[in-house]
Amino acid sequence: MPYIQVTLIEGYSDTARIRMSERITRAVRATIAAPLEGTVVAINEVGPSSWMRGGKSFRSPGPEMPEAAQLVRDFLTAMQERDLPRAEGFLAEDFVMEFPGAVRMRKLAELIEWAKPRYKAVAKTYERFDESFGDDATVVYCYGKLSGEGLDGKAFSNIRFIDRFTVRNGKLADQTVWNDLAEVRGK
Amino acid sequence: MPYIQVTLIEGYSDTARIRMSERITRAVRATIAAPLEGTVVAINEVGPSSWMRGGKSFRSPGPEMPEAAQLVRDFLTAMQERDLPRAEGFLAEDFVMEFPGAVRMRKLAELIEWAKPRYKAVAKTYERFDESFGDDATVVYCYGKLSGEGLDGKAFSNIRFIDRFTVRNGKLADQTVWNDLAEVRGK
Amino acid sequence: MPYIQVTLIEGYSDTARIRMSERITRAVRATIAAPLEGTVVAINEVGPSSWMRGGKSFRSPGPEMPEAAQLVRDFLTAMQERDLPRAEGFLAEDFVMEFPGAVRMRKLAELIEWAKPRYKAVAKTYERFDESFGDDATVVYCYGKLSGEGLDGKAFSNIRFIDRFTVRNGKLADQTVWNDLAEVRGK
Amino acid sequence: MPYIQVTLIEGYSDTARIRMSERITRAVRATIAAPLEGTVVAINEVGPSSWMRGGKSFRSPGPEMPEAAQLVRDFLTAMQERDLPRAEGFLAEDFVMEFPGAVRMRKLAELIEWAKPRYKAVAKTYERFDESFGDDATVVYCYGKLSGEGLDGKAFSNIRFIDRFTVRNGKLADQTVWNDLAEVRGK
Amino acid sequence: MPYIQVTLIEGYSDTARIRMSERITRAVRATIAAPLEGTVVAINEVGPSSWMRGGKSFRSPGPEMPEAAQLVRDFLTAMQERDLPRAEGFLAEDFVMEFPGAVRMRKLAELIEWAKPRYKAVAKTYERFDESFGDDATVVYCYGKLSGEGLDGKAFSNIRFIDRFTVRNGKLADQTVWNDLAEVRGK
Amino acid sequence: MPYIQVTLIEGYSDTARIRMSERITRAVRATIAAPLEGTVVAINEVGPSSWMRGGKSFRSPGPEMPEAAQLVRDFLTAMQERDLPRAEGFLAEDFVMEFPGAVRMRKLAELIEWAKPRYKAVAKTYERFDESFGDDATVVYCYGKLSGEGLDGKAFSNIRFIDRFTVRNGKLADQTVWNDLAEVRGK
Repeated sequence: MPYIQVTLIEGYSDTARIRMSERITRAVRATIAAPLEGTVVAINEVGPSSWMRGGKSFRSPGPEMPEAAQLVRDFLTAMQERDLPRAEGFLAEDFVMEFPGAVRMRKLAELIEWAKPRYKAVAKTYERFDESFGDDATVVYCYGKLSGEGLDGKAFSNIRFIDRFTVRNGKLADQTVWNDLAEVRGK
Repeated sequence: MPYIQVTLIEGYSDTARIRMSERITRAVRATIAAPLEGTVVAINEVGPSSWMRGGKSFRSPGPEMPEAAQLVRDFLTAMQERDLPRAEGFLAEDFVMEFPGAVRMRKLAELIEWAKPRYKAVAKTYERFDESFGDDATVVYCYGKLSGEGLDGKAFSNIRFIDRFTVRNGKLADQTVWNDLAEVRGK
Repeated sequence: MPYIQVTLIEGYSDTARIRMSERITRAVRATIAAPLEGTVVAINEVGPSSWMRGGKSFRSPGPEMPEAAQLVRDFLTAMQERDLPRAEGFLAEDFVMEFPGAVRMRKLAELIEWAKPRYKAVAKTYERFDESFGDDATVVYCYGKLSGEGLDGKAFSNIRFIDRFTVRNGKLADQTVWNDLAEVRGK
Repeated sequence: MPYIQVTLIEGYSDTARIRMSERITRAVRATIAAPLEGTVVAINEVGPSSWMRGGKSFRSPGPEMPEAAQLVRDFLTAMQERDLPRAEGFLAEDFVMEFPGAVRMRKLAELIEWAKPRYKAVAKTYERFDESFGDDATVVYCYGKLSGEGLDGKAFSNIRFIDRFTVRNGKLADQTVWNDLAEVRGK
Repeated sequence: MPYIQVTLIEGYSDTARIRMSERITRAVRATIAAPLEGTVVAINEVGPSSWMRGGKSFRSPGPEMPEAAQLVRDFLTAMQERDLPRAEGFLAEDFVMEFPGAVRMRKLAELIEWAKPRYKAVAKTYERFDESFGDDATVVYCYGKLSGEGLDGKAFSNIRFIDRFTVRNGKLADQTVWNDLAEVRGK
Repeated sequence: MPYIQVTLIEGYSDTARIRMSERITRAVRATIAAPLEGTVVAINEVGPSSWMRGGKSFRSPGPEMPEAAQLVRDFLTAMQERDLPRAEGFLAEDFVMEFPGAVRMRKLAELIEWAKPRYKAVAKTYERFDESFGDDATVVYCYGKLSGEGLDGKAFSNIRFIDRFTVRNGKLADQTVWNDLAEVRGK
């Protein structure tokens, strides 16, 4: 039954307003057992001269946040295509990666070096992306299967993995990886 | 700047209303770059005779959803305490677990059997729980470190793991586990 | 889809608020093709110190209007029971009745006299009451079947009639009657 | 005192919004004794990307309902002009008419036949139309005076009648007629 | 914390809406100790067919009130420039002035005559204008320093004064003056 | 026409809510030419668990501001009664007074001394108090007539005065006085 009315300054894109409504719908229904068809979100847009906080009116809407899951997808695509400069464009200055065995690296070039003695090639297919919204960051989880070619030239496939990314201010702050490579192939 | 007004039937607990407000705050701020101190949520409660949808008035609020992360914590505590009957109380009828190596099991008893040839004891410490709200289910991710005692009697510790749970209608529908046990200890 | 929020001073009965919500629901859906299950009415009650119009705050809610159809039913019951004093209590000072043949009367006693040379007894059964809300009055239509005993002692039944009442300020201002008595029995 | 705020998707005509406001005003004031000048209706229009119910946003407003009384007027005009094809366009498939004496017909052509042995010509003048809004249909009552020419060539006039129409989904579902023809002229 | 939502008919200028928001902000914060940055005013504009009071819709917004302090400034400028016709344009028909010694005058020409035996020239500098909003009028206070030249040719300066104006319907209804001229220069 | 809805945390007194409504009514009508009887303020109170700003919910309403004009009246009464300790309780630490001739003092005792060579006794009658709300302070103007007894034992009366007070955080920050004493009595 809940009815949610959002008052926003005008100028946000259709995409942002629809995405906000979807996310509010889910946030509400994760909290109370409200029927989906009875959960309504309406966004009331007001002009810049019709909104004042703290005695100041606003001139324009703030920026829209990129969809964190899409940002991660785009980064992963760049990595898949071995376009390191593009991939680095997604990273925060203090980006850090952690791989199985708790190996920590900061540079994508390090990662490439690290992988060399492990496999000739690897590719990921994704089953699902989940976003978890925090106060200052969104966490993105994605998981699926690895396939590739070992150093011995043998193909491997269907190996489970999961990645966790923290997205803050439109940049990836960290990546943490777990997978079954050691489980399946031996360390 | 956004102002979000929720109209709810009266009767939800303080906890539910505060949790809803927090989640809406995060959902909104994950979508637009709104300053935290300018994001306001107000909940307007109306009595049962003051709410009508579809020509019908309501008698009482619907149930509150359990906090999915807490549900997972409670299940994990029961497992830690080897209280299988209590742990089973958290599971949906068609609950399924998936462990490293893509091993799939349905019963907690199976899990106990499966673990026997792998280690004598294992304990988990958690770094963090993340919730991701979907249309019909909430996904909970938690990760941290495993410690325990191997079959050879040697202690192991600080081994990375991550669990993923789907919580639907107040029950755990599935659990998926990734960890570094094979990476660190050999398969 | 429409969402209707009514701000009312607190103190109206549950019945009044539910009835208002039903009537608004119908008023809206008679105007636009809104799905019933998507039409929501919420009533937001404010205390007497929280409502000001024209620089004046209010002390209490105004009276509730009687349900016009019920008022008519009660009058008709009193008439059926030949309780003229009670029936007269429902009538406005300038009440006027009009019967088939455009016969106009002002007093219930006149009506009794008028009926004497027409039938020994008459009773009404009602199929339906309809209310039509105007700016200052509600019109009530009710129709059904007459049965009774003619002057010749023969029973008659199943004779169509319709009554129209104007209800203003909680009193019946007029009654207009059409029926098939002449059609069926001859004048 | 009541203040009624309607949230609607943008795109409804001025006529629909004014009519809705008038009808809500009357619905409210038929329920509580609110002063006319203190009864306010405001319609808040939101764009298609600013409205979500059940997790879905809407593309456009639904259709507006025809004004039921006008639909009846148009039908009656077509009948008056003996334009049967046009008149039939207003009728639901299962339309049924009931005339004095409880005569029931389904086709306008039947009605013409039925009237032939009753009068040479008949015309109606209307005093008033009343609408009563139900959950799925609007009932329209109209009444006034019949005049015409009897089979004997004599003019008759000033004969009371009342019609009742059920309007559902923009079509006339039924018509019920009461009048004084038999009362005045003899059966 | 308060959130104030104003529903206005569309068409008021940006200036009027910003000014209204500022004044409401101050009115609220003069009443409760609300933090400035938590006080939000949003203006929701509705079209002329989306607003109905007393069963009537509106065609256009009413006029905006001139800023009373500015009106007073403009009058004072005209006086300073000895442009009496322009200055008189600001005055209500029954305008009355009161000067030290409780001298009352109605015409600006009288004032000029009255001043002649008092000083050769006088000029005002203003430190501040304050507006006080009443039910039907706004009172403007302004104060500052007088300087000029006495009849004896000697300059005087830095003499305290305060003016009080009642502004009603866009015209000055009265002016009341207090100053230190007698205190400083002797009567 | 404007409709103003204030959302407040519950717990403010009736007085505060009525005063706020009055002040908002005046603030709005000083800005646009809205009819008094069409200007409506409703206050919607929400509980402490139903209000969140910046991700934090509130426990209780903030303090109510004293009515600045009443504070000034109370101070003036204490002065009239020569109750200096009570009068000093109204003053901010850096309180400063300015009297005709631009005499500045900080202590009430100084004022008493200063007055001694000027008159034996003085009393004020007040015609009116006006409040002007600023961002951080309310200015109060009051004016009326002085009467008293001169050093020569002669009574004086009906001498115009005006006082200006700045009220900040519930204390008087300054007082500025203009009057006709010199004008009327000679310096």
